[in-house]
Amino acid sequence: MTQHNSAILLIHCHDQPGIVVAITDFIHSNGGNILYLDQHVDEQCSVFFMRIEWDLQGFAIQQDKIAEYFATLVATRYRMTTRLHFSNDIPRMALYVSKMSHCFYDLLARYESGELNVEIPVVVSNHEDLRLATERLGIDYHCININKDNKAEQEEKQLALLAQYDVSFIVLARYMQVLSDDFVRHYPQKIINIHHSFLPAFPGGRPYHSAHQRGVKIIGATSHYVTAELDAGPIIEQDVVHVSHKDSVDDMVRIGRDLEKIVLARAVRHHVHHDLLVCENRTVVFE
Amino acid sequence: MTQHNSAILLIHCHDQPGIVVAITDFIHSNGGNILYLDQHVDEQCSVFFMRIEWDLQGFAIQQDKIAEYFATLVATRYRMTTRLHFSNDIPRMALYVSKMSHCFYDLLARYESGELNVEIPVVVSNHEDLRLATERLGIDYHCININKDNKAEQEEKQLALLAQYDVSFIVLARYMQVLSDDFVRHYPQKIINIHHSFLPAFPGGRPYHSAHQRGVKIIGATSHYVTAELDAGPIIEQDVVHVSHKDSVDDMVRIGRDLEKIVLARAVRHHVHHDLLVCENRTVVFE
Amino acid sequence: MTQHNSAILLIHCHDQPGIVVAITDFIHSNGGNILYLDQHVDEQCSVFFMRIEWDLQGFAIQQDKIAEYFATLVATRYRMTTRLHFSNDIPRMALYVSKMSHCFYDLLARYESGELNVEIPVVVSNHEDLRLATERLGIDYHCININKDNKAEQEEKQLALLAQYDVSFIVLARYMQVLSDDFVRHYPQKIINIHHSFLPAFPGGRPYHSAHQRGVKIIGATSHYVTAELDAGPIIEQDVVHVSHKDSVDDMVRIGRDLEKIVLARAVRHHVHHDLLVCENRTVVFE
Amino acid sequence: MTQHNSAILLIHCHDQPGIVVAITDFIHSNGGNILYLDQHVDEQCSVFFMRIEWDLQGFAIQQDKIAEYFATLVATRYRMTTRLHFSNDIPRMALYVSKMSHCFYDLLARYESGELNVEIPVVVSNHEDLRLATERLGIDYHCININKDNKAEQEEKQLALLAQYDVSFIVLARYMQVLSDDFVRHYPQKIINIHHSFLPAFPGGRPYHSAHQRGVKIIGATSHYVTAELDAGPIIEQDVVHVSHKDSVDDMVRIGRDLEKIVLARAVRHHVHHDLLVCENRTVVFE
Repeated sequence: MTQHNSAILLIHCHDQPGIVVAITDFIHSNGGNILYLDQHVDEQCSVFFMRIEWDLQGFAIQQDKIAEYFATLVATRYRMTTRLHFSNDIPRMALYVSKMSHCFYDLLARYESGELNVEIPVVVSNHEDLRLATERLGIDYHCININKDNKAEQEEKQLALLAQYDVSFIVLARYMQVLSDDFVRHYPQKIINIHHSFLPAFPGGRPYHSAHQRGVKIIGATSHYVTAELDAGPIIEQDVVHVSHKDSVDDMVRIGRDLEKIVLARAVRHHVHHDLLVCENRTVVFE
Repeated sequence: MTQHNSAILLIHCHDQPGIVVAITDFIHSNGGNILYLDQHVDEQCSVFFMRIEWDLQGFAIQQDKIAEYFATLVATRYRMTTRLHFSNDIPRMALYVSKMSHCFYDLLARYESGELNVEIPVVVSNHEDLRLATERLGIDYHCININKDNKAEQEEKQLALLAQYDVSFIVLARYMQVLSDDFVRHYPQKIINIHHSFLPAFPGGRPYHSAHQRGVKIIGATSHYVTAELDAGPIIEQDVVHVSHKDSVDDMVRIGRDLEKIVLARAVRHHVHHDLLVCENRTVVFE
Repeated sequence: MTQHNSAILLIHCHDQPGIVVAITDFIHSNGGNILYLDQHVDEQCSVFFMRIEWDLQGFAIQQDKIAEYFATLVATRYRMTTRLHFSNDIPRMALYVSKMSHCFYDLLARYESGELNVEIPVVVSNHEDLRLATERLGIDYHCININKDNKAEQEEKQLALLAQYDVSFIVLARYMQVLSDDFVRHYPQKIINIHHSFLPAFPGGRPYHSAHQRGVKIIGATSHYVTAELDAGPIIEQDVVHVSHKDSVDDMVRIGRDLEKIVLARAVRHHVHHDLLVCENRTVVFE
Repeated sequence: MTQHNSAILLIHCHDQPGIVVAITDFIHSNGGNILYLDQHVDEQCSVFFMRIEWDLQGFAIQQDKIAEYFATLVATRYRMTTRLHFSNDIPRMALYVSKMSHCFYDLLARYESGELNVEIPVVVSNHEDLRLATERLGIDYHCININKDNKAEQEEKQLALLAQYDVSFIVLARYMQVLSDDFVRHYPQKIINIHHSFLPAFPGGRPYHSAHQRGVKIIGATSHYVTAELDAGPIIEQDVVHVSHKDSVDDMVRIGRDLEKIVLARAVRHHVHHDLLVCENRTVVFE
C-alpha cells in the first residue's frame, strides 16, 4: 500500500476500442504512476469496467481539478460513468444495530484495532442494549425507536442525524427494521446490509428456521447494498458453511453468527476501499 | 471395512428412554459384534434416529429371520420404523442420462475402477449420444424418446425395463426430463437427482442463467431424492463454489460441472451404503 | 440443550464386544435419560471412543458418587479411561495475550454476549497493550514480562496466579511466548493455542512469510493443545482460505486474522463442551 | 470467448512508469481490439506481470511477425520477458499414468467431451493397466517400464517418443515415478504434477498416511510444475477438504481422489489457456 495520497477512479461504459489507452495515457502523460489497474469486460452486455489507482505525488493536475479534466479529456468522449475517490479521504460510517451484538462487536473491534479504514462517529439503534459498549469507545449512541406508526418521522430524525455527523455510508449490522424506500433513496449504494442466508434462498424473516425446515446441508450469509426491494439489492459478498441433520435451528443461528460477521466485514472493507461498481443490480468487485 | 457379511439396520421412532439399550442388547445377547453405531435425536420433533451395523459371523439368528425377530422383540414395542440391509447385497442402479456427459463419465469411471459398490446393468436415455461410451463397458443402453404426447406410454416401457433388469434405484445424471408423479411413486426415496443450484435457490430450468442474472457470488449443486414436487425432495448433499463478476454463464456451467459430479457421486455413495434416512422431507445422513 | 444438570462421560478403551450395552445399561437401569451418544471405533488401533450425556434428574446415583459407581460397575472391568463432567460446572479460563488483539476481542465479545459458556476471571499478558479493554469488562489483567533470563521465575508467578484464580484451562490468543515444558506439564490437554498456518506446514515463527515465499494458494489456521514439542500437539480444529498471487504477506496477515479467530473460538467451544478426547496425539471431536 | 484467432501475450519485467501505456498503445495503434487485460505488480520485489489478449482480425502486423515487432518496439526497451501464444494453436499433451485411474479417467472424459482444449496423442505408463481404456479412445499407449537400473535409457526412449508425437507439455496423473533432473530440464514449466497433500505439508510418499498419523482436520491436493527438487516446484492450484477422526487412511485416499482430479484438471486448464507465469518459484495465475 502506498503512503502517499492516491486517486482511485472507477469507470464503466459501453465497451469500445481505445479506452484502456485513453485512460492510461491520461495518467501517464500527466506524470501519474499507476499503482493498480484492473478491468473487466462483461461480454454479454458489452460493458467495460475499470478500477485504476495512481500516485498523486508529482501528478500535473491538482487534486480538485482531476474530475473536471478527466471528464473533459476522456470520459465525455467515451460516455463513461465515473467515480473518483482519494485514498486520504476517510469514509464516515454510521452503524445501525438492534439487539444482536456479534456483527457490532466484530466491526468495532476492527475499528478499535485500526484494521478498518473508517471513522465511526455514531451508532444508531432502536434499542438501548448496546449503548454502554458503544459509548465506552467514545462513539455517540442514538436510540431512535421505530414502530409502524412513527416510522416516517423517526426516519426523518435519522436523516437529520446522519447529516449532522456527515455520514458517507451506513452499515446495517443485524438492524431489525426495514428501511423505507424514501430513506433508501437518500443513500443509493451506500447502505450495506447483512442477510443471514445465501440469497436468493430464504429472503425475509427467519431464514434459519426456513433453512432447517427445508433440510439444506449448507447455510450462508449475504452482504448486499440495500435497495427498495427487500433482500434483492446487489450482492457484495456471500459465504456458506456446511451443516448437517444434527444442527438444530439454534445451532444454525450460532454457526451463522461467525459467517455473518466475516461476510459483513468483507463487504464493508470493499466499500471503504472503493472496490465496488454496481451495474444492473450486480456488483463488480475489484480485489 | 469388514470382509464378512454384516447387517445394517436403520431405525427411527418417537424418542423414549431405553431404546438404545433395547437395540444394542438385541445384537449383543445374540452374539453380534457392533461395527458401527450412530444415533441422533431431533429434539424439536422428539424423533430418534439410528444406524447400527453388526458382524453376522456367529450371530445366533439366521439372516432371513433377523427382520422378523427384531420386529417381534424390539421394533413393535417401541413403534419403530426400520429398514434392514446386508452388506453383501449389491444394489442395482439404473443410470438415466440425456446429452450432457460429465456426471455420466464420472459415475462410470468410479464404477469401472471398483470405487462404487453397485451393479449398473442399464443406462436409459432419451438420446443416442452416450450409447457408444456405455456399450464399450458392456452395459446395455436403451434409448427411449420422451415427448409431451408419449410420456405415459414411454414411462411404462421404462418401468418394464427397470423390472426386467431388477433395478433397485435410479440415478438421474443430468437427465433432462421431468418424471411423472406416477413414475416417482414406484421408486420412493430410490431416485436420486442432481440439480445445478444450491436449492432452494433457483429451482427449475436454467439455474446458472438465473444465478448470473441475480449476481450471486457462489454457485452450487444439490443432490436430492425425487418427489412429486419438482426440485423439492429431501436434500442429500450440497456443495458450492465461489464465482465472481468475471464468470459468464458459460464459465458457471463449466465450473458447475465439477461440482455436480462430485455432489452426485457423494449422494450415490451414501445411498449405496445405506447411510440415509428420510423424515419429513429432510435426510439424516450417517457418516 | 437441556436446562437440567447432566452428566457427560468421555470414555476410551480397547474395543471389545458388549461395551455399548454395559454403558447404556448403567445409565438406563439407574433412571438416566440419554441425551447424547456418539461413539467411534478406530479400527486401525482397535480403540473404542464414546461421549455420552444423560439427564441427572431422577438419576438413582447421586452426583458425587457417579464416578465411583461407574468405575466399580463398568470401567474397571473393561479397562476404560474415563473423564466425567457436569453441565452445571462452568470452566474457568485464563486468556493469554500479547499485542495482537483480534482473537482477544473475538473471545471477549463471545464472552460478553453469553455465547461462550465459561468464566474468564483473568487475562495474562507480557505487554500492557490490552489492559484497558480487559479491565473495562471487569476482568483482572496481569502483565508479567517474560524474557530469556526470567522465564522460570515468571512462569512460577503465572502458576501461582492461575491457582489463585482457580483456572481450569488456558487459551493462548496469539500469545507470543513459548511455554516451558515444565509449565505445560501442569496443564496437560488444558492449554489451547492458535497457530497461523495449516499445520504441519509452516510451524514456528512467521508462517505467513513462509507461505508467501512458497507461493501457496491456501493459507490456514490450526488450533491445538500445547505439548512439549512446539506446534506439534493434537490438532483440534483447522480451516483454510484461498489466496492468490495478488496477496502480499500483509494481505495474508489480514485475511488470516479472521481465520484465526474463528478456528480458535471453535476449539475453545469444543473444549468447554467436553467434546474432545486425545489419543496418541490425535483428537476425537464429538459434535 | 472469441471465435477468431487471438494473440495472448504474457509479460513480466521490473515495474516502471509507462509500461501499460506502451503495451496497450502497441495493440491499439495497430488495430487490435483488446479482449482481456490483467496485470499485477508484486510490490515486494517490484515486478510487473501482465496477461493481455487481443483479436487478430484486422491487426496490422501479420501473426508470425508480432513477436519480432513487439520485441523491437516495446519489450527490449523495458527489458521485458515475454511469451506469445495464439488461441488457434492447440497444445499437445502427453498423459503419464501408473495404475491409479481416477485422474486419468477424469482428464480423458474432459478430453472426449471437448471440455479440454488440447490434443492428447499419447499416454505413457510404466504399467499395462490402462491400455484398454486408452486405446478405445484412439489414443496411443506406450508402456515403458522404469526401474532403478534402466531409468536413464528408458527416459531417453520417452524423450524420443515425446518428440515423435510433437508433445508440448506433460501431465503426471498420479504417475508413480520420480523424473530425473535431466528429463525435467527438457520441459521447464511444461510438466504438471498432482501431489496428494496440501504442500508443503507431507511431501514425498504416502502423504495420506502421514496426514492420518498427524491427526490433521483437513487434507489437500496440490498441482505444481515439476522442478528438480521433489514436490517443491511452483504451485498452480491447491484445494482441501475437511476430514475428521472418523476418517481412516482408506477414507482419506477415497476422499482425496475427488480433490486430486479437480485440482489437476484446473491446473491443466490454466496451462492450456496460457494463464500462468512463473517467477521465483511462484505462479501468477490470471483468471
